[in-house]
Amino acid sequence: MKLWSAEVAPNPRKVVIFLMEKGIEVETVNIDLGAKANYEPKFIAKNPLARVPVLEFDDGACLAESKAICRYFEETNPEPPLMGIDARDRAFVEMWDRRMESELMANMTGAFRHCHPYWEGRIEQIPAYGDICKRNAEERMALLDSELANREYIAGDAITIADITAICAFGIGRVARIRIPDEMTNLTAWHERISARPSVIATGPKPK
Amino acid sequence: MKLWSAEVAPNPRKVVIFLMEKGIEVETVNIDLGAKANYEPKFIAKNPLARVPVLEFDDGACLAESKAICRYFEETNPEPPLMGIDARDRAFVEMWDRRMESELMANMTGAFRHCHPYWEGRIEQIPAYGDICKRNAEERMALLDSELANREYIAGDAITIADITAICAFGIGRVARIRIPDEMTNLTAWHERISARPSVIATGPKPK
Repeated sequence: MKLWSAEVAPNPRKVVIFLMEKGIEVETVNIDLGAKANYEPKFIAKNPLARVPVLEFDDGACLAESKAICRYFEETNPEPPLMGIDARDRAFVEMWDRRMESELMANMTGAFRHCHPYWEGRIEQIPAYGDICKRNAEERMALLDSELANREYIAGDAITIADITAICAFGIGRVARIRIPDEMTNLTAWHERISARPSVIATGPKPK
Repeated sequence: MKLWSAEVAPNPRKVVIFLMEKGIEVETVNIDLGAKANYEPKFIAKNPLARVPVLEFDDGACLAESKAICRYFEETNPEPPLMGIDARDRAFVEMWDRRMESELMANMTGAFRHCHPYWEGRIEQIPAYGDICKRNAEERMALLDSELANREYIAGDAITIADITAICAFGIGRVARIRIPDEMTNLTAWHERISARPSVIATGPKPK
């Protein structure tokens, strides 16, 4: 199998961190999103939505969507568990991961896409919508800060995919100039804890 | 356990259809979103994001996010399978369900929220963003129409959560005046097939 990925972009990064935390190695091909390699017909045949990551199986079947790829590896390589340990726990991990996606990742991506010069001419930008996304993300950070008063990780006492989704969201949030305010001490401590993991360091922006 | 739900809203509807397809009965309390019952402190204590559905366990733990609630019931009541039958199939069902969420549900909800009078004064509406959502939804319908040329259901030869998410998305799309064009014959046939299911009829808009 082969993983089609891209450096820096948050969703492929999520899968790469997930694989490193599992200790799984998969042949990986990084494509150049800046040069629109994801819109080439050869890639569109793998994912009509023109997005990475895509996991290509040896029989040619192509699995897109980062969460779906993570789920495949969770089921085929259960240790260490990153998506919960029993039916109820798995449901709560899913709840937290979805909140990190819909409240952090979606809003931070919205702020980036609608307000950042990178996207000028690439999409129809609506800065007023990006501003709403930024405010939403900031409100959600406050909620997360209060949740993290009582536990070390987002879905409980161990790292899960929810932490991985969140740290990738904060990576894109940084580009959109969304920072964790100093007074959110629980969220700041969590961010430092996750940022120190080898998987997160290895996939972060490279020093220039 | 108790399910906090609301009639008509697409995410609670998804869970109710899922439960009916499984043949599971859960005590259900419908709250009045129009009267903002979801913002009352008693409800915020169950879900700080002020949204239905919420599954309240007998020990008081509250599980939010429709997909997380569906996953809990899939794992505790595996038959009939609505989220795939083995590791690889489950991953592909997840891919299709996420596409239905991010490409149909999110865009149709965006068109509804940003262009419909119901939301005037409830949120900051940006009609230009709603228009983009509407165009995105229409593009994605065309893609889905071509996918459905070769199979009866969205993720394969049997109904899955992806079909349930999609039919709930089309329900909200209807309110946003997004219709399936007549020339999309595969998508139209799928829509008629799913709309005929007792679970979909029972949860749809009531005749006046």
